[in-house]
Amino acid sequence: MRFITISRVLQQHRNKIQIQLRCHRHLHSVPNRPSVGIAFDIDGVILRGRSPIGDSPKALRRLYDYDADSGSLKIPYLFLTNGRGIPESRRASELSQLLGVNIDPIQIVQGHSPFKNLLTRFENELIVATGKGEPAVVMSEYGFKKAISLDEYASYFKNIDPLSPYKTWTTTQPCNEQKSSGFDVTSERVKAAFVVSDPVDWSRDIQVLCDILRSGGLPGEKSEHQPHMYFAADDLEYQAVFPSERLGMGAFRIALESIFNSIHHKPLKYTSFGKPNPFVFKNAESILMELNGIYKDTKSHSFKTLYMIGDNPSVDIKGARQAGHPWFSILTRTGVFRGKENHTYYPADKVVDTVADAVEFILRREAIA
Amino acid sequence: MRFITISRVLQQHRNKIQIQLRCHRHLHSVPNRPSVGIAFDIDGVILRGRSPIGDSPKALRRLYDYDADSGSLKIPYLFLTNGRGIPESRRASELSQLLGVNIDPIQIVQGHSPFKNLLTRFENELIVATGKGEPAVVMSEYGFKKAISLDEYASYFKNIDPLSPYKTWTTTQPCNEQKSSGFDVTSERVKAAFVVSDPVDWSRDIQVLCDILRSGGLPGEKSEHQPHMYFAADDLEYQAVFPSERLGMGAFRIALESIFNSIHHKPLKYTSFGKPNPFVFKNAESILMELNGIYKDTKSHSFKTLYMIGDNPSVDIKGARQAGHPWFSILTRTGVFRGKENHTYYPADKVVDTVADAVEFILRREAIA
Repeated sequence: MRFITISRVLQQHRNKIQIQLRCHRHLHSVPNRPSVGIAFDIDGVILRGRSPIGDSPKALRRLYDYDADSGSLKIPYLFLTNGRGIPESRRASELSQLLGVNIDPIQIVQGHSPFKNLLTRFENELIVATGKGEPAVVMSEYGFKKAISLDEYASYFKNIDPLSPYKTWTTTQPCNEQKSSGFDVTSERVKAAFVVSDPVDWSRDIQVLCDILRSGGLPGEKSEHQPHMYFAADDLEYQAVFPSERLGMGAFRIALESIFNSIHHKPLKYTSFGKPNPFVFKNAESILMELNGIYKDTKSHSFKTLYMIGDNPSVDIKGARQAGHPWFSILTRTGVFRGKENHTYYPADKVVDTVADAVEFILRREAIA
Repeated sequence: MRFITISRVLQQHRNKIQIQLRCHRHLHSVPNRPSVGIAFDIDGVILRGRSPIGDSPKALRRLYDYDADSGSLKIPYLFLTNGRGIPESRRASELSQLLGVNIDPIQIVQGHSPFKNLLTRFENELIVATGKGEPAVVMSEYGFKKAISLDEYASYFKNIDPLSPYKTWTTTQPCNEQKSSGFDVTSERVKAAFVVSDPVDWSRDIQVLCDILRSGGLPGEKSEHQPHMYFAADDLEYQAVFPSERLGMGAFRIALESIFNSIHHKPLKYTSFGKPNPFVFKNAESILMELNGIYKDTKSHSFKTLYMIGDNPSVDIKGARQAGHPWFSILTRTGVFRGKENHTYYPADKVVDTVADAVEFILRREAIA
């Protein structure tokens, strides 16, 4: 069931991108494009926290024909990253500022970006969204009409979180306008739950998600039907500012799944998007193709090589390896991976120190000036 | 190894109780005591949140000879409960106020009470304590000289919790006095971690505990030696104010254990105290014996019957059943269990509606006026 869903999602996503890209075409469409493309991971490759690493601004500027602000792309590239719970447009503008190049929202493929392709299924259904940032805003911008944050959802159920007296969270208070416009969450069943970005309040989120999932979408009720559960990513650990890796959304999924399976007689059913899922790489290929100015027949204009530059062997490299041709994996030593040689379990096609070295390698290999 | 530790702990605990009880003896020591005792669970049996349930104040008053404030105990009783991260003395005073009977700290056996018996092992070692309430205060009152809360511990390691910018926790700020009195946590290894009560900030606690446990006690370092890990309880769910059960410390343990085992090559080693561990019931028996005024030879003055009154089949009833003679289990319908008949997997010796019915049953069965 999982892969049927994903392939349907991919098709819908492609259709949408084609429509969106017709508006951006003039920015990127230049003849005689090389048949290569690049996907960059962000955290641990391009940035650590909010600081650029590995000479990343300079490396990115080398991918443009002239000036990075006004010039067109020499090599189409995008960012393949876990989301921060903010819309793609805002992330693009934030990255443009931090990196000094003009990044288009279409170049931002966040873990939660594919959620927009579930719109036909849940557009008018009650859905909950959780994670740092503004998860419900992200879902609303994708077009979901009845998206509510888990923060706000929990606030409608008194005492649902017994630990709340010990917390000083700032939550969005429920307001009457929302209730009167069809948001009566205390009587309507939740049809799907989305983990958009890394959850912040794990004890509350795990508790409320378990309540929703084992009650058929309405805490306190009884039903055998489990609402749909979607995760934007499944990375166990990632490189942030702290010297050693930090727990990611995959760790949250493990916690939720193992607790749910202990209190419920049927195991948790869920779908994880995000690297290393092969769907992500298929999706990236399709977007890079659009960026390359090829709209008509994707099959006859396939890429010679697509480069995945990442720091995490079990996510970036494993994903690119599983995706197979035309993906070529480059592992940097600026994040999760710090080894001298290659990674033992998920060896990359090439290991370099920094993202600048990776771009240098690609330009030389492709004989691009 | 686990049970060697526990039996040693039990012996040390008994010795301590005997010393403590000599001071309280006059309160409880009355001749011709019946050879029965009662252990009450609190949440879902005596209280829901802070409200008495099942006529509990009246039921408790029936256990005294005359007036509950000044009279002596007709039947020795204690509370066998998970802790709230506050010292036994404070919990006793809180319960006395809520229930209108004079409860002595010795009658409060919290999940974390047995931690005091690990004093000989960790008295002068750096230990971290987590959970709602004041976990480090609890440990300090037990005599641990270098107990620090995980809240404060985490504050010494910049960026250890990447989600902290999204939180507005009130944490104890590190202060120089503590550092100068031998608390240099950034260079000293943590020897043991204690989960005293239900953790509040799961994402931070799981992250920092994983850091401590896989680094040999100093985040960022490398060591094969895992510091000791103790949990005060292991209840998966419990009955709070919300209509359906809430996740307890056992759920937190499952989350920590499954994540730790995914990121580390050796499985987590830990010890869980609290019900249904048979140690808890042995310990309760020994305290009830002290309350009954028998100090000299515990073996020759064993109880005819000890009643465990609880609402949770998999914790209270399972525990009493595993403990065997002289335990007799009574299941109330005021908390986790709401069934008409008995529980399927952990049937109690007797099922009643409320704690008042349980006390009535005991008094009749023992022919006590």
